Amino acid sequence: MTYCLGIKTNDGLVMASDSRTNAGFDQVNVCRKMHTFEAPGERVFILLASGSLSCSQSIVTLLERDFQEGRGLAAAETFYDAARAVGEQVRRVADLDRAALERDDYRFNVHLILGGQIRGQPHDLYLIYPQGNPLRASEDSPFLQIGECKYGRPILDRGIRHDRTTLQDAARYALISIDSTMRSNVTVGPPIDLLVYADGELRVSRYRRFAAKDPDLLAIHTQWEQALRKAVQEVPEIDFDPPPSSDG
Amino acid sequence: MTYCLGIKTNDGLVMASDSRTNAGFDQVNVCRKMHTFEAPGERVFILLASGSLSCSQSIVTLLERDFQEGRGLAAAETFYDAARAVGEQVRRVADLDRAALERDDYRFNVHLILGGQIRGQPHDLYLIYPQGNPLRASEDSPFLQIGECKYGRPILDRGIRHDRTTLQDAARYALISIDSTMRSNVTVGPPIDLLVYADGELRVSRYRRFAAKDPDLLAIHTQWEQALRKAVQEVPEIDFDPPPSSDG
Repeated sequence: MTYCLGIKTNDGLVMASDSRTNAGFDQVNVCRKMHTFEAPGERVFILLASGSLSCSQSIVTLLERDFQEGRGLAAAETFYDAARAVGEQVRRVADLDRAALERDDYRFNVHLILGGQIRGQPHDLYLIYPQGNPLRASEDSPFLQIGECKYGRPILDRGIRHDRTTLQDAARYALISIDSTMRSNVTVGPPIDLLVYADGELRVSRYRRFAAKDPDLLAIHTQWEQALRKAVQEVPEIDFDPPPSSDG
Repeated sequence: MTYCLGIKTNDGLVMASDSRTNAGFDQVNVCRKMHTFEAPGERVFILLASGSLSCSQSIVTLLERDFQEGRGLAAAETFYDAARAVGEQVRRVADLDRAALERDDYRFNVHLILGGQIRGQPHDLYLIYPQGNPLRASEDSPFLQIGECKYGRPILDRGIRHDRTTLQDAARYALISIDSTMRSNVTVGPPIDLLVYADGELRVSRYRRFAAKDPDLLAIHTQWEQALRKAVQEVPEIDFDPPPSSDG
């Protein structure tokens, strides 16, 4: 399983991913699910991938080859075109592998999140479905998730506001969201990749990989757990009705 | 969809359920999913149900009939026997309805949580699967959930401790867990039924139904959201590595 998320605010983007991959229960590995495509000063893309590692690797390989040759993500005129360029490679790999996978009851299930910016245009964030079609984040839905997304969603629903959340806060929300998911589901695991992109940077300047025992990650985990427990105790005491049978 | 949970601590039990039921997207109703069976001073059971309402209603009807006739839950010598008595009715309804459901591609998917106490024995908490087999809560896994359980799980994982959590705190956790789920998934909805049972009571003395606009529920919702946001901002600021390209 996997958990990746992208957050888009007025100020920029936060992208985050876990690194656990498994084929069955007894073959668990570490794998980077965050990929960057950079032409500093001109354009930058961050791609997050969930689903069959074999298929997502193929898609990234084809996108990288195109990028180096000045095609695909390197040539897209708008961010929408960039999302479509990713979708094209999704469909290409689906054409290559889908029939063989389905014959053995595997699904072609690659979901991708693409964030970034092209010079002269706003930063943007898209989800690309296994069918290749793109979905754009919006002011009302300022974050996108792929993989095991339910555990880490409530904290984002409560906290992320497109027009108000700072990038530093969005980065905290992203880490807490992934940390909550790792706590509740063993198939999502460290290291965590975290990237913060500010509108107009047009390069990757803030990226960090948190290993399982990263002291900063442990500090956040512990402090968050303590803060939650304290917050629960500050919730008003719950009064109860008279028992249903008291007047019977 | 549905979300129900039971929490078992040293001091007793907390049982909670939402009330939204839907057949398709355009047929949404309110339905009580919490059922009590009480012989005050002698035994008390609280049953929570998820899955096909038609099937869970049948199970409850059969259990109630048995209870009134001094059989089933009324006659169980141990709590394990009580869980088995519920499982028997699950299997009976499965025998009645399963084939017809599956012929039209519906699944027999009733999950139940049974909490309560029999005089002279410890209070206890079980989950009963659609196949009728029971699973017991333990000190390491002191809560059980059925239905749409992922959104509301992280807060329970962080907070509930069998030997330390007070019943009042457990009730707060249960409400927050359901409130978080309602916030993230429209198919889980109010009213919320909440029941707190203290070890040895052998009757229902603390039960409350929270309607959507219950001022106490709104106060908890608002205060919790504010506390979460504050807690996020108190998490240490995230430092980033020097950019990967800075020494390149």
